[in-house]
Amino acid sequence: LASIRIGICQINPKVGDLEGNANLIVETARKAHSLGSQISVFPELALCGYPPEDLLLKPSFIRATREHLNEIAKSVPESVLLIGHPEEDGRLYNSASFTFGGEVFESYRKRLLPNYAVFDEQRYFVAANSPVKLFEICGVKVGVSICEDIWSPIGPALDEVRGGAELILNLNASPFSIGRRWQRAMMLSVRSSDLSTPIVYVNLVGGQDELVFDGGSMAFDQSGSLIVSVEAFVEKVEVVSIDLVGRGRKFQLDPRGLMSDLDPEIIKVVDNQPSLEVPSIYPSDQSSSNNNAALWTHPAPRFDLNWVDSLDNYDLGETLSALILGLRDYVNKNGFRSVVMGLSGGIDSSLCAAICTLALGKERTFGIAMPSRYNAGSSLDDAQILADNLGIAMNVVAISSLHQEFRGVLKGLLGSDPKGLTDENLQSRIRGVLLMAYSNATGAMVITTGNKSEIATGYSTLYGDSAGGFALIKDLPKLLVFRLCRYINEVAFGREVIPESVIIKPPSAELRPDQLDQDSLPPYEVLDPVLMALVERDMTTSQMVTSGFDPELVSEISTLIDRSEYKRRQGAPGVRVTPRAFGKDRRMPITNGFDQRRYGL
Amino acid sequence: LASIRIGICQINPKVGDLEGNANLIVETARKAHSLGSQISVFPELALCGYPPEDLLLKPSFIRATREHLNEIAKSVPESVLLIGHPEEDGRLYNSASFTFGGEVFESYRKRLLPNYAVFDEQRYFVAANSPVKLFEICGVKVGVSICEDIWSPIGPALDEVRGGAELILNLNASPFSIGRRWQRAMMLSVRSSDLSTPIVYVNLVGGQDELVFDGGSMAFDQSGSLIVSVEAFVEKVEVVSIDLVGRGRKFQLDPRGLMSDLDPEIIKVVDNQPSLEVPSIYPSDQSSSNNNAALWTHPAPRFDLNWVDSLDNYDLGETLSALILGLRDYVNKNGFRSVVMGLSGGIDSSLCAAICTLALGKERTFGIAMPSRYNAGSSLDDAQILADNLGIAMNVVAISSLHQEFRGVLKGLLGSDPKGLTDENLQSRIRGVLLMAYSNATGAMVITTGNKSEIATGYSTLYGDSAGGFALIKDLPKLLVFRLCRYINEVAFGREVIPESVIIKPPSAELRPDQLDQDSLPPYEVLDPVLMALVERDMTTSQMVTSGFDPELVSEISTLIDRSEYKRRQGAPGVRVTPRAFGKDRRMPITNGFDQRRYGL
Repeated sequence: LASIRIGICQINPKVGDLEGNANLIVETARKAHSLGSQISVFPELALCGYPPEDLLLKPSFIRATREHLNEIAKSVPESVLLIGHPEEDGRLYNSASFTFGGEVFESYRKRLLPNYAVFDEQRYFVAANSPVKLFEICGVKVGVSICEDIWSPIGPALDEVRGGAELILNLNASPFSIGRRWQRAMMLSVRSSDLSTPIVYVNLVGGQDELVFDGGSMAFDQSGSLIVSVEAFVEKVEVVSIDLVGRGRKFQLDPRGLMSDLDPEIIKVVDNQPSLEVPSIYPSDQSSSNNNAALWTHPAPRFDLNWVDSLDNYDLGETLSALILGLRDYVNKNGFRSVVMGLSGGIDSSLCAAICTLALGKERTFGIAMPSRYNAGSSLDDAQILADNLGIAMNVVAISSLHQEFRGVLKGLLGSDPKGLTDENLQSRIRGVLLMAYSNATGAMVITTGNKSEIATGYSTLYGDSAGGFALIKDLPKLLVFRLCRYINEVAFGREVIPESVIIKPPSAELRPDQLDQDSLPPYEVLDPVLMALVERDMTTSQMVTSGFDPELVSEISTLIDRSEYKRRQGAPGVRVTPRAFGKDRRMPITNGFDQRRYGL
Repeated sequence: LASIRIGICQINPKVGDLEGNANLIVETARKAHSLGSQISVFPELALCGYPPEDLLLKPSFIRATREHLNEIAKSVPESVLLIGHPEEDGRLYNSASFTFGGEVFESYRKRLLPNYAVFDEQRYFVAANSPVKLFEICGVKVGVSICEDIWSPIGPALDEVRGGAELILNLNASPFSIGRRWQRAMMLSVRSSDLSTPIVYVNLVGGQDELVFDGGSMAFDQSGSLIVSVEAFVEKVEVVSIDLVGRGRKFQLDPRGLMSDLDPEIIKVVDNQPSLEVPSIYPSDQSSSNNNAALWTHPAPRFDLNWVDSLDNYDLGETLSALILGLRDYVNKNGFRSVVMGLSGGIDSSLCAAICTLALGKERTFGIAMPSRYNAGSSLDDAQILADNLGIAMNVVAISSLHQEFRGVLKGLLGSDPKGLTDENLQSRIRGVLLMAYSNATGAMVITTGNKSEIATGYSTLYGDSAGGFALIKDLPKLLVFRLCRYINEVAFGREVIPESVIIKPPSAELRPDQLDQDSLPPYEVLDPVLMALVERDMTTSQMVTSGFDPELVSEISTLIDRSEYKRRQGAPGVRVTPRAFGKDRRMPITNGFDQRRYGL
């Protein structure tokens, strides 16, 4: 039985930093080579990072990627590399090229370009429509595919196998959402077994604005068994030995009549490589490590309306890892030295402070408590206990004098004392100004602490509590905030860092006497499923009523969601963790006259 | 010579308001019918408004559009209508359907889906790939095309003419940018002459978030002559009589060999209509009204680096019309009763106040002057003169006491007096809080007054002067601000409403003693061409240096642009007037390591 050793190079490039990324690729390639890799595979668009957005419209950017690709080839002539990069040839392609012996070989060009959810690839790239080609490396015929390509059962991998491919290499930039890894593993297992061909899936890792690429690269043998699953959320180089099945044998074993005799173009990359020292690789019979078992026993949640209840510690751990990586990369890649947030003694800011501490360390995390006349004394105590538990510095600044001064000035302007929402927002905005002043003076980035339930309903103050550079938990429904707090105490820290009193007290913005969230919103146990139905599921009013929801409530929440689109449009970016986040995932007009309550559909 | 009367129904629907739009279509169709229209043509996606964005992903939305389409057909059975609407048939199409006699006929489906600049149609629609079909109405064979379709010389209109079409109806939702109307007219003239076929171009009118659809519908005869050009920026119904050229004659006259014998599907809509009373239509020989001459003598600016200098009153008038319509529709369609803005006595806020007064009237426009210790006394005087000239109410609120109180509180927090940028931003944010409090208390929407040069370079305070619901002049480079102020005085008002002293004084944020914009930025005569080169033209550093720009300056401005992307991402929407606005038009990553200064390309 023939085999080949593939180096899975799960790297974390920075969008646009071509020089840094090229250096990272060279270093990683040398490491993989030293581990015995015969083909070192990098993620989709690894050279420029993903998604490069409108950088791709800059001719200088495209030309510079080519220069760096040529240099990489010359820097690592001893090793076969497969690298994702944008490629111009009259039109722009999302490509992957083999390099060896100082040369860059003819590329594979992506055929299926996703243009839905967070993806806009058809804005930039042309879908390739070229005849099948295979790459011959050490006598092995290799087919290449890029991300979306492998999600289609009739995509390029099928043609490549029909043309004689013995191995499919699949380059990815696939962003995290809860349960996504399991969906990928299911699909890849079926695909490799359908095609009777091993598939090596290499994913990007790292945070880029709202997206977190979780890595979690995998390899499957020709029967669909998981051979290796690389640790997620970290950079990693692993070399895996893949057993190959000859084409003749596949024809013999093809029960579904998939095989046919295509006659592909063969591009010979290298005949044979000098035999390599192989200090440490996966044995070819290692098809069930513990690591892999963990993946299989945690299927994706069903995302029914109460999906948060069904999450287990595996899901919560993944979610926390995504938040940590997304925050850390946003802070570090953008050159911030530290972060600061208002600590109210409430659950959202407490969760944010704990995640910041995990992501950046206690020395880079600062809190400011800004009590007003309406804050319970216990809130300040809770904030202080949290800060002490985390070991982070916290300042206390009372806002009463500022609030009083503003009320005086506004009385002159408005002709009467500010009241109701005007007065509530005022307090929130005073805090925003103080946090931003601290940010200006110290360079700390402000973390804004709103959760998805608030952001969906507009239960936040524009330029007040929504002010900040990164909205860390903007994609966590409130019920997930509760669950993640408990997980952080029980698992991540193994002790009570977020005080139990914070978790159990009724949520309040504390902007007027005895205010509770539930004065304005239904209880979160009721609200969150409604939001799930309206935002992620696009359920109609009548479907929801049939499912047992109160029509009044649905109507009210639906209006709140539509009316707060303008606030979301001015919101800070934050980590996407659900399959449909606000932002690029859900692009609604602000000016929007659609009133779905009218249509019993 | 046969002829047919086409009703150009240039309407202003509201995105999502299906019921309101359906009523508007019915009323307009009846009016066109009474004017003698034989076919009344509505714009692209007129029924749902454009662009509906992710409303298109809601099944209830799509089904409701169909219900309304059926109802419209029943409400106006006496008239042939052609209406743009989304259409589901397994997949989603951008369609146009004829209605007559209570029936909805088989649709035309758009073939060319734009997915560049502000367009994302491939996110929603499938491009139709069906055989050519024509619609027979009163014995005339009519070809339909939608917007982008007509921009291709080998698009569906060519096939339709080859198949025997005697007339092309083209439905549009084409957004304004300076000079765009002339480009459309040029293209349509060439297209109708190439095809020896009349083209009726019907465009949407109205503002939708950042876009303004300018209407300006047109009709061209078979020789490429403009027959009628409908007034831009207003709703309008015009009926135009189109002379038709028989297919045989076209074959005789076809010098370029375009004609061929396609055999299209013919869908018969109506044999003949009862003869109509025709009280007022364009005579068929009216091929050069004054209206039309104005369009032809104002070609689009060349958009070289000093393009603002080349604008004439026609261009400035169009720009002002777009700003007025964009603002008015944003305010009215979103249900705001009034607008408010800070009046500093500077040129940007003065221009905004003048535009608001033109768009909404003086009763709906409010100003607040918020002088600090650093404001020149003359600034407050200028603001008052402006308000008096416009006849709008202005309040004065000094911010010194608030500034002092904040400085005291921040000294406690920071350990020393806030200084530099911290102190400057503080003043700007205090003003933001006051404006937002006024907005909360009165329901007035805050207009934020930053121009494109500031927004490009990040010369603004997040949550300070950038706070607001609508960034009216965000797409006007500073040099265009100057020109538009003079135009407003000279033409729009015909008197000096914006004081000359405001226009000629050196721009300043007045946030520290003797501050001038030019302390931080190059003079706008130097800056604006650099921004044009970097933002709209994607010119490389070395191209710019070759063109005579200072390399240091280019490098510095390039860095400013990249570093302020995070501010733009939290900015309010505003009217697009240039061919490349910040926002959907230019989608850059925040986390962005590309340093184009390194690449001499």
